Amino acid sequence: MPAKKKVSSAAPRPKATAPTVAESAIHPASVLSVTQLSLPDVQHILKLADELEKEPPARRNQRLFKRRVSLLFYESSTRTRTSFEIAAKSMGADTTLVSDKSSSIEKGESLKDTGLTLRALGAECIILRSPYSGAPWLLAQSTGLPVLNAGDGMHEHPSQALLDLRTILQRLKKSGPLTPTTLKGITLTICGDIFHSRVARSNALLLPRLGARVILCGPPPLLPEAAAQIAPADATGSIQIERDFNRALEQSNIVMMLRIQAERLAGLALDLSEYKARYQANAERIAQYAPQAVILHPGPMIRGMEITSEVADGPQAAIEQQVHNGVAIRMALIYRALGVAKAGRAR
Amino acid sequence: MPAKKKVSSAAPRPKATAPTVAESAIHPASVLSVTQLSLPDVQHILKLADELEKEPPARRNQRLFKRRVSLLFYESSTRTRTSFEIAAKSMGADTTLVSDKSSSIEKGESLKDTGLTLRALGAECIILRSPYSGAPWLLAQSTGLPVLNAGDGMHEHPSQALLDLRTILQRLKKSGPLTPTTLKGITLTICGDIFHSRVARSNALLLPRLGARVILCGPPPLLPEAAAQIAPADATGSIQIERDFNRALEQSNIVMMLRIQAERLAGLALDLSEYKARYQANAERIAQYAPQAVILHPGPMIRGMEITSEVADGPQAAIEQQVHNGVAIRMALIYRALGVAKAGRAR
Amino acid sequence: MPAKKKVSSAAPRPKATAPTVAESAIHPASVLSVTQLSLPDVQHILKLADELEKEPPARRNQRLFKRRVSLLFYESSTRTRTSFEIAAKSMGADTTLVSDKSSSIEKGESLKDTGLTLRALGAECIILRSPYSGAPWLLAQSTGLPVLNAGDGMHEHPSQALLDLRTILQRLKKSGPLTPTTLKGITLTICGDIFHSRVARSNALLLPRLGARVILCGPPPLLPEAAAQIAPADATGSIQIERDFNRALEQSNIVMMLRIQAERLAGLALDLSEYKARYQANAERIAQYAPQAVILHPGPMIRGMEITSEVADGPQAAIEQQVHNGVAIRMALIYRALGVAKAGRAR
Repeated sequence: MPAKKKVSSAAPRPKATAPTVAESAIHPASVLSVTQLSLPDVQHILKLADELEKEPPARRNQRLFKRRVSLLFYESSTRTRTSFEIAAKSMGADTTLVSDKSSSIEKGESLKDTGLTLRALGAECIILRSPYSGAPWLLAQSTGLPVLNAGDGMHEHPSQALLDLRTILQRLKKSGPLTPTTLKGITLTICGDIFHSRVARSNALLLPRLGARVILCGPPPLLPEAAAQIAPADATGSIQIERDFNRALEQSNIVMMLRIQAERLAGLALDLSEYKARYQANAERIAQYAPQAVILHPGPMIRGMEITSEVADGPQAAIEQQVHNGVAIRMALIYRALGVAKAGRAR
Repeated sequence: MPAKKKVSSAAPRPKATAPTVAESAIHPASVLSVTQLSLPDVQHILKLADELEKEPPARRNQRLFKRRVSLLFYESSTRTRTSFEIAAKSMGADTTLVSDKSSSIEKGESLKDTGLTLRALGAECIILRSPYSGAPWLLAQSTGLPVLNAGDGMHEHPSQALLDLRTILQRLKKSGPLTPTTLKGITLTICGDIFHSRVARSNALLLPRLGARVILCGPPPLLPEAAAQIAPADATGSIQIERDFNRALEQSNIVMMLRIQAERLAGLALDLSEYKARYQANAERIAQYAPQAVILHPGPMIRGMEITSEVADGPQAAIEQQVHNGVAIRMALIYRALGVAKAGRAR
Repeated sequence: MPAKKKVSSAAPRPKATAPTVAESAIHPASVLSVTQLSLPDVQHILKLADELEKEPPARRNQRLFKRRVSLLFYESSTRTRTSFEIAAKSMGADTTLVSDKSSSIEKGESLKDTGLTLRALGAECIILRSPYSGAPWLLAQSTGLPVLNAGDGMHEHPSQALLDLRTILQRLKKSGPLTPTTLKGITLTICGDIFHSRVARSNALLLPRLGARVILCGPPPLLPEAAAQIAPADATGSIQIERDFNRALEQSNIVMMLRIQAERLAGLALDLSEYKARYQANAERIAQYAPQAVILHPGPMIRGMEITSEVADGPQAAIEQQVHNGVAIRMALIYRALGVAKAGRAR
């Protein structure tokens, strides 16, 4: 397979940056955190996504024909799970889904053993969603397989940040090599339940490295002051907090709304109608304060809560484009994961 | 793909007849209700089912190779879900199942947004089962994709009526073009819980248009008098109610038994043993009143309730033939749905 | 397909040995119990596993291209379900999973009718896991299809015994034809909850026929005296009970640990710490009493209960090798099931 060889040589081998465990065992094509990815890595993934998306289905089917990809989902998911699954199948891989509800987990098996089992069954890559922050590191370390983090607790969701980046670059019509100034002059506001959001976190860890200014917006219980301090060391942009959504909107080229869970507001003694009055993305507010901004939402949306249908279905929204980009990004991540795998690995 | 072009030109584009929503957005190859389908449409589907069923598996696999079909199931199902899934895979399509239990539904996402997400993920057709009558219209309207109704509440189950029709025509050895008199002189009795049955409804809306006489049979709580009034405007046959099962049987060429749920009888103050005495399809009754009739059942059967094993496993029963026909009919529906899709649709 | 013909002629047609039902209807390539399999059958399966495992994926994909395999799982499972699924897909078959939670079972349908439905949907082989001992016989008899028992209640788990055998032969470096003396001189200890274990039972029914001595070990509530009496009539080896784990270990070449469920111990008035003191496979005990033995575990393991991580991850353990062998064995079983199917079976 010439395509494989090409990628193999092109793919930079990123260093994994697991916070607490030994790094040696983690497969270099794992994507556990966006902080692992150098800008050339990110650029490589974006380029691969373009290539794979354009490729005719019958030819793309040969890319990973009969290779084995496992999906291990400990939380329910429509778009992320389906997106990874479609991505893998599009390249001809066989997928296996192991989900909480029908698995040995019920019998008390550890994540480590489930991972070792999947590896022994022939999995060449594991895509993991877990309610526990850091679980992907444990899995990557214990299996030595490339692991793709499909969301771990309140921690990270790197493929989401990458698909958001692809969407932003498309909407801003930016192409060419990624540099620390690619998004210079661009302001992105993330509004809502920042505290619990792995999507917010992964975006805040990625975009400032391209020069973007990230504004976090929300009431204190959902957005502690400390959140602004996560800016990566190599950030050329910045992260700041702005409690007034209107003032944030006025400065923004991109607005990312996050889902608000009614039950969480209740627990925080926040009034729902007050929340909406101050933070909802509705037609009037967007028309007045951000009439040109691109509107993003990682989904699932609760229409009438954090966003109204007029905005969600309006011309500024790029929400479906995000989902669409998810498939291309995930094809790139899976292909990269298997493409740099050791030749001759037992199948 | 020449096959595609051929179907494209051959396929009549039926008008959707959504009762309350604008028609413009509904994809013409959707099958939401049997009332949408003209007799030439039905004939086209039956012919396509024959063709696809006969085709060698390796060639059939090229029909929809790597096309994307989504199954969205909000109710549990074995035969319908599996049947659609096998049908799609047989033609080479990649399928994705989203079911209630592992989806964003839990997080409050609307059907509309789930549909838009599936479309953005590359779905070219959505097969929907929902507990809500009318849900397929909403989905078809919001996505613009071909939607196949795999059962919506107490409303319709069009693919079931089509597979029942195929079974009936096979058993009666009727071939040739479908006309308003194809089933002239044929009487079909549907017995059981008519009121809650989408299968009964779809059959009652389809068969009289081919000239059949449909007898609905059951006790008043399960069969209101108004049920006889659903006969379609272009019916050349008729629908009538007959409370005496034996009298209905005497007149019937075809008998369709419906599942009876014990808990439902209890709620209606109906006595189970009395129900069986009057409405059960058992060997004695069938031998006495309908010794030549073909026995149908959409499944799942509760043996010993509405039907006995002697009858279910006997020579008059065509119950497995119905299931078998389901795969062929669903191949035809999916192929038709994708075959008339706009060329160049984003994948 | 020449491969198919070859197997067809090579495959001995084993007699099914269903205890209570008529034998005539059971498809000869069913594997319901290890007792059905003659030594030449077992040898054929092991040889087929070798062949299929070595075959390049693209060629293997042609073996059962577009054939239809159904998985019917009434109990949750990761490794067995996934293993069968991967095995079938590796040979190009389309698989369909029907599991408890999303099926007509909820609606009261019988196993028989679910089986007939799957057959009518085109299934050519059904893989069944059921909480009811004997269920696979019922399914095989009512459908006439080849049925592979993937675990039935406390009764049998034949594919597990076959993969254990493959692992044992590999570790002992035994090759060549299987005979009643292949494992002569070899002692295997099975330790833990023998009473509830279908894995223990299938191994105890298979290995003594190859000459092995099987020692069952555990406290009386989990290992009744009667357990030693299940030795098959044609056993050349033996089955015996040894309550002292250390003494059992001293004699063993192979040690198979079984999962212990804390809640089960509680019910039996067994003290967990006492259980561990006497029966846990830990580093000290293994080093002292069985420093050369191969350690097996069918999974899922509860680390720290019946086995410690040092042992599970140590060089004597062949636990991942067991899982790996599961795929090869299950490819062989599925291929054998479809390979000897009547030519021209409706698909």
